[in-house]
Amino acid sequence: MKVFIVFAHPEPQSLSGSLLRTTVEELKAQGHEVQVSDLYAMKWKSQVDREDFPHLPPDARLKVAYASAEATASNRLTDDVKREQEKLLWADTVIFQFPLWWMSMPAILKGWFDRVYSLGFAYGLGEYSDTRWGDRYGEGKMQGKKAFLVVTVGGWREHFSARGISGPIEDVLFTINHGMLYYTGFEVLPPFVLFQSDRADDAVFNSTVDELRQRLCTISTTKPIRYRPQNDGDYEIPALTLRPELGATSASGFSLHSIE
Amino acid sequence: MKVFIVFAHPEPQSLSGSLLRTTVEELKAQGHEVQVSDLYAMKWKSQVDREDFPHLPPDARLKVAYASAEATASNRLTDDVKREQEKLLWADTVIFQFPLWWMSMPAILKGWFDRVYSLGFAYGLGEYSDTRWGDRYGEGKMQGKKAFLVVTVGGWREHFSARGISGPIEDVLFTINHGMLYYTGFEVLPPFVLFQSDRADDAVFNSTVDELRQRLCTISTTKPIRYRPQNDGDYEIPALTLRPELGATSASGFSLHSIE
Repeated sequence: MKVFIVFAHPEPQSLSGSLLRTTVEELKAQGHEVQVSDLYAMKWKSQVDREDFPHLPPDARLKVAYASAEATASNRLTDDVKREQEKLLWADTVIFQFPLWWMSMPAILKGWFDRVYSLGFAYGLGEYSDTRWGDRYGEGKMQGKKAFLVVTVGGWREHFSARGISGPIEDVLFTINHGMLYYTGFEVLPPFVLFQSDRADDAVFNSTVDELRQRLCTISTTKPIRYRPQNDGDYEIPALTLRPELGATSASGFSLHSIE
Repeated sequence: MKVFIVFAHPEPQSLSGSLLRTTVEELKAQGHEVQVSDLYAMKWKSQVDREDFPHLPPDARLKVAYASAEATASNRLTDDVKREQEKLLWADTVIFQFPLWWMSMPAILKGWFDRVYSLGFAYGLGEYSDTRWGDRYGEGKMQGKKAFLVVTVGGWREHFSARGISGPIEDVLFTINHGMLYYTGFEVLPPFVLFQSDRADDAVFNSTVDELRQRLCTISTTKPIRYRPQNDGDYEIPALTLRPELGATSASGFSLHSIE
């Protein structure tokens, strides 16, 4: 396999840093090729702004989506963004590792998506008609590749359980797994989540490393989350609402969009 | 009222920029005091890193939460962060305006929360015992203040409806409204959302401005989202799972945590 790891934590000497090194070591020991984007170490630029589009005339209004489309089509994205897109195209498996901060990814990683997921690369692809609504949600440039999250969470597992106050971890991560990964065509494997990561002692750390290694040995056989493809008949087009006869047990919500 | 607006869009000459100017103008016309943090214009630093904690010895391991707690307690947060915290304390109403990018806020705004929401200011407050679990989810430093989101969305309203493929907009915004705003004690008003914002023509723009002005006239009477307070008996402590007899109609999911 060719595995691309996008890592977002500011401290190499952290539990997250140790888990990253475990991942790289284990994958290489299995004979896989590995590339890592360590966003803090790379001093990754977090925010989309005019500097992303140096060809835009200084007095032109910045329309982010249009500028992104034009730069993508004319191969004028900035070099740092192009390199990340090349790594995505090179990989057959992509791992995103980050601590959950305020229910989401750190800003530096959000900025990786905001910048690397350009129009014409990650969205705005394919036919928009009365039978299809673009190559997205199951289709797109990442089709045929797998992706999953490795997430460290300060809170307790119970707080993120079905009735926990934070919301179920599957729902908290839905906008990432479904809205960012499945959207571009990835098969999304279940996330690897360590709860109460701030309190992990040696025993917890060691068992976490064991579980992570095990997970890395079974990437090819782990079943992906069964999200519903957009263009295969489950959704009305162009409203993109789930057909009334499907998922009838839930009236609404994220869980409608995967098959149990 | 004292209204603090946190704005995250890179282009002043955008629809978002126009809506910001409308908001400021309308609030001032009503006699309210207004402060704006225009994050792009301020060149806000997006990512939490060592530079946030200049007092940390160069060879010390950066533990973000601990460094944040120490800097907060000793009044050694960086000046840019302190200014934002002062604006939050000054305000009685806070508006966050941003375009929805990849189902969430732009990186620069995520970085505002990652940095401004320090330990001892936004979390880690109050008593942790078998009857309370900190001042959070309805309690905290923002108690007594209102907040709401003004969000522009490229997708269609139907795509974000109860059965739409993106998930209901209430759920997409839940980790922000509940996990970031209600968490710190804000009363959270329903968001103001403009869908298909990239396609807004003059008629749509004008009606949006009218609706936004109307909304700004009724802040004091708009009913907040009825999220369930953490420490008032609805949740088991410390598991923080909703008591079995409550919210029985839904087995799980975000909607459990508000009262219809």
